[in-house]
Amino acid sequence: MTHTLTTRLNDVDIEAVGALIGAIGADPDCASTTWRAEVTWKRAFRSEASIREFAPIPSDEPPALGGDDTAPNPVEQLLAAFGNCLAVGYAALATASDIAIHELSIALEGDLDLHPFLGLKAGHAGFHDIRAAVRLVSDAADAEIEELHDRVTTTSPVGHTLQAAVPVNVHLATK
Amino acid sequence: MTHTLTTRLNDVDIEAVGALIGAIGADPDCASTTWRAEVTWKRAFRSEASIREFAPIPSDEPPALGGDDTAPNPVEQLLAAFGNCLAVGYAALATASDIAIHELSIALEGDLDLHPFLGLKAGHAGFHDIRAAVRLVSDAADAEIEELHDRVTTTSPVGHTLQAAVPVNVHLATK
Repeated sequence: MTHTLTTRLNDVDIEAVGALIGAIGADPDCASTTWRAEVTWKRAFRSEASIREFAPIPSDEPPALGGDDTAPNPVEQLLAAFGNCLAVGYAALATASDIAIHELSIALEGDLDLHPFLGLKAGHAGFHDIRAAVRLVSDAADAEIEELHDRVTTTSPVGHTLQAAVPVNVHLATK
Repeated sequence: MTHTLTTRLNDVDIEAVGALIGAIGADPDCASTTWRAEVTWKRAFRSEASIREFAPIPSDEPPALGGDDTAPNPVEQLLAAFGNCLAVGYAALATASDIAIHELSIALEGDLDLHPFLGLKAGHAGFHDIRAAVRLVSDAADAEIEELHDRVTTTSPVGHTLQAAVPVNVHLATK
């Protein structure tokens, strides 16, 4: 490391981001990325998702939905992913704009009608509305924070995935 | 508990699901649910998502994206949530159809162009393609498995959220 954490605004390694931007400028194909997860069913409504070398993300359902309630359920995990994505966005773009963040938290909610999931009627089984309430404490001017907020919400990978109709292909093999 | 795990097909508590369906039949408003997560920024690109009483889901970015690589990143978490959701779907609907699952695993991939996230061009910052390869081992007939697969993919809450354009509102407070 060529500099200590204390010299990094928001502790963000902005030089690494700059290096990536430089690499993409030299070779735009560097920006084409593929991400992966591997899920293993653990019987009942329990499963876990393995990502690279990290501890698996466990999943279950609450008792009312027939689960053993040992872990967050998949739609809660989806909200978690969105909130974590927004946090990266604020941290990255605040640092690029020389804004120090003192505190940042995000409360997420999503509304879901269980009828389609339970086969009680056809229709949209997913969230029909998602809300995120961001609390960002900083000494920056309100106008700067508003601009930061606009940039974060218009460049969020998980946010865009939720707001767009993404092609999803689920292929089944039985061997 | 009125029965042991060994009497439960796939270990699924199908009676609890039946009870929920009965409750929704008596009062359709029971099917309107709201799910929540609370994200706290931990400096740099680290954050964690708290859901109910469970251990938080940690998040970070790989070094090339400026992170400390301590946890899966948010787009990987999104794939994890989708895979975990599909697992619940197969387990629930197989049990309802009297199909015993011996093994179930799901490999997920998503493609993402980093240009919009990094502010290098405008456009869709999210996944532009998501693929799930399901491996389901069962003694059931191929036609039964195909029907199960169709029902799972047409009733997946996370799958539908990804495939639909969901309204997302991100509200900012600075106090």
